[in-house]
Amino acid sequence: MGKNFKIITVERDVLRKNNDIALLNKKAFDESNAHCINLLSSPGSGKTSILEVIIPRLIRGRNVYVIEGDVETPNDGLRIEKTGAGTIQITTLGSCHLDAGMVEKAFRELDIRKSEGPRSMLFIENVGNLVCPASFYLGEHLNGVVLSVTEGDDKPLKYPKAFRNAHFIMINKTDLLPYVDFDISRSREYILKINPGARIFEMSAKTGEGIDGLIAWLNEMAR
Amino acid sequence: MGKNFKIITVERDVLRKNNDIALLNKKAFDESNAHCINLLSSPGSGKTSILEVIIPRLIRGRNVYVIEGDVETPNDGLRIEKTGAGTIQITTLGSCHLDAGMVEKAFRELDIRKSEGPRSMLFIENVGNLVCPASFYLGEHLNGVVLSVTEGDDKPLKYPKAFRNAHFIMINKTDLLPYVDFDISRSREYILKINPGARIFEMSAKTGEGIDGLIAWLNEMAR
Repeated sequence: MGKNFKIITVERDVLRKNNDIALLNKKAFDESNAHCINLLSSPGSGKTSILEVIIPRLIRGRNVYVIEGDVETPNDGLRIEKTGAGTIQITTLGSCHLDAGMVEKAFRELDIRKSEGPRSMLFIENVGNLVCPASFYLGEHLNGVVLSVTEGDDKPLKYPKAFRNAHFIMINKTDLLPYVDFDISRSREYILKINPGARIFEMSAKTGEGIDGLIAWLNEMAR
Repeated sequence: MGKNFKIITVERDVLRKNNDIALLNKKAFDESNAHCINLLSSPGSGKTSILEVIIPRLIRGRNVYVIEGDVETPNDGLRIEKTGAGTIQITTLGSCHLDAGMVEKAFRELDIRKSEGPRSMLFIENVGNLVCPASFYLGEHLNGVVLSVTEGDDKPLKYPKAFRNAHFIMINKTDLLPYVDFDISRSREYILKINPGARIFEMSAKTGEGIDGLIAWLNEMAR
């Protein structure tokens, strides 16, 4: 399929430019003493709900900021703002992922004051999409993927790029395990098969199960 | 953001070429007396499970074929093959959507015999992604979106393109309604706000709820 090769060439060029900007983003994050975490998942896996639960606790020890990405609507940004985090919403109007240029602009507008104390934590909530965002490095220090148990335990094998790039995986909505066919040990096995170093958290943003461990680890990583 | 405009220009060119091929696909479907249905959803919404439930019943009255799209793994194709449908698997190896060229090639390999009786039904199960596949017309007669109740009732507003293009929407996994915060009437309102003509089916591939109505409508549409 010659047509496809043409598309791939274009994408490679786009990705190269994206990475150049992402590396400058990382430098800017470090200069602001901000630890950046890029969150990926399918639509509705629970990225926003997880942030709503963890930010009020993280914010006790450090400044927290969120760059909120959505195809349309400012709904998630409005939800996150209530946590007390400095929030900026990017609405991509159709684009299926955040790119480093969008994050560069959002980060500038966030105008983070350099913290002299503990590092600030900057979350990027990417567009709900388990495919495209995995190709766009944004300059983050940590990359996290949310997999909800309602999506099926085979997803790590079917969307390997997102899971391969992730430093940590949140298996979310464990409160629904009794009602769905999802084998936790099989999903762990699939994740570790393609990403043996991944840190896995079993959790429920709804009931709070597993949240303590996630928060402790995030704080540890941001030291 | 000048960078983005460049990307958009490239995409427009890609989409134009895609549409040319899609129109030829539609012609080929019609010449084979095949009615084509393109299914979109997030990962894990239940596209494959729905096909597993409806194909054994549809196949009693007509030939059924499936073009199965995945980023990686032939798992879904192997599941679908057991239904008795003529099945071909496309593995996109990273690409986030099926394009018309991939479908053209798959359709040729399926080698559908022109049915002299009832029209054949050809399902295309797109890559699990609620964003990008919505931009790529494949030549289908009907476009259907699956929204599972675990994803949240706000998804039609957040991913409007997929819902706007759809002829029918399957609100799936209604058996999980007691355990999740999903307001069916609100989701119907959101869907109809952006797509007033959409046909909506509330259903569960697991329990069979709502399947009769969906099958009757699909048969009616394929007359």
